[in-house]
Amino acid sequence: MTEPLEEDALQLALAALPGWKLQDDKLVKRFVLGDFRQAMMFLVRLSYEAEALNHHPEIHNVYKTVDLALTTHDAGNKVTVKDVELAAAIEAFL
Amino acid sequence: MTEPLEEDALQLALAALPGWKLQDDKLVKRFVLGDFRQAMMFLVRLSYEAEALNHHPEIHNVYKTVDLALTTHDAGNKVTVKDVELAAAIEAFL
Repeated sequence: MTEPLEEDALQLALAALPGWKLQDDKLVKRFVLGDFRQAMMFLVRLSYEAEALNHHPEIHNVYKTVDLALTTHDAGNKVTVKDVELAAAIEAFL
Repeated sequence: MTEPLEEDALQLALAALPGWKLQDDKLVKRFVLGDFRQAMMFLVRLSYEAEALNHHPEIHNVYKTVDLALTTHDAGNKVTVKDVELAAAIEAFL
C-alpha cells in the first residue's frame, strides 16, 4: 500500500507543483482552457498519463474550465506519491 | 433567450429520457462505464453532440463513473429545451 505523504513531503511537493494546492486532503488545480474543445483535448491528453500511471484524477468540467482533484483511495483518500507523480506528469505536457 | 420549461413540459421530457432526473434545477444522470478508457470515450463522443448543439454539460468523472448535469445559464440556470435536446442526443448514441 502507498503511504500518505508526511507534512514535510507534502509541502515540498506543493512547492514543486505551481498552482496546485491542498484542499480536503486532495491535490487540486483549476485549468482554464481556451474553449470546450481545448478542455476536451486536455482531458484526453491527461487520460494517457492517468492510464500510464494507473492512477486517475477526479475531473470536473464546465465548458472551458477543468478542475482536477487527486487523492489515493487505498491510502484512505490521502495524498500520496502517486498523486504527486500524476500532477507532475500533467504539468510536464502543458 | 430560451425560456425555462414549464412543469408540464419538464415532466414530459423526463418521461421521455430514461434515467434522467431533475436535481437542483438541472437534468442529471449517472453513467457507469466499463472502465476509465470507456468513460473517456463516452466524454469524447458526447463532446461532439455538445459542440453540434452549442450547449455543454457539466461533467464530473471519477474512474468509470460519469455524472452529467444539464442546465441553461442564459435561462437563469433552469432546464430548457436545449438541455432536453442534449440529453436526447446523448441517449441516441448509447
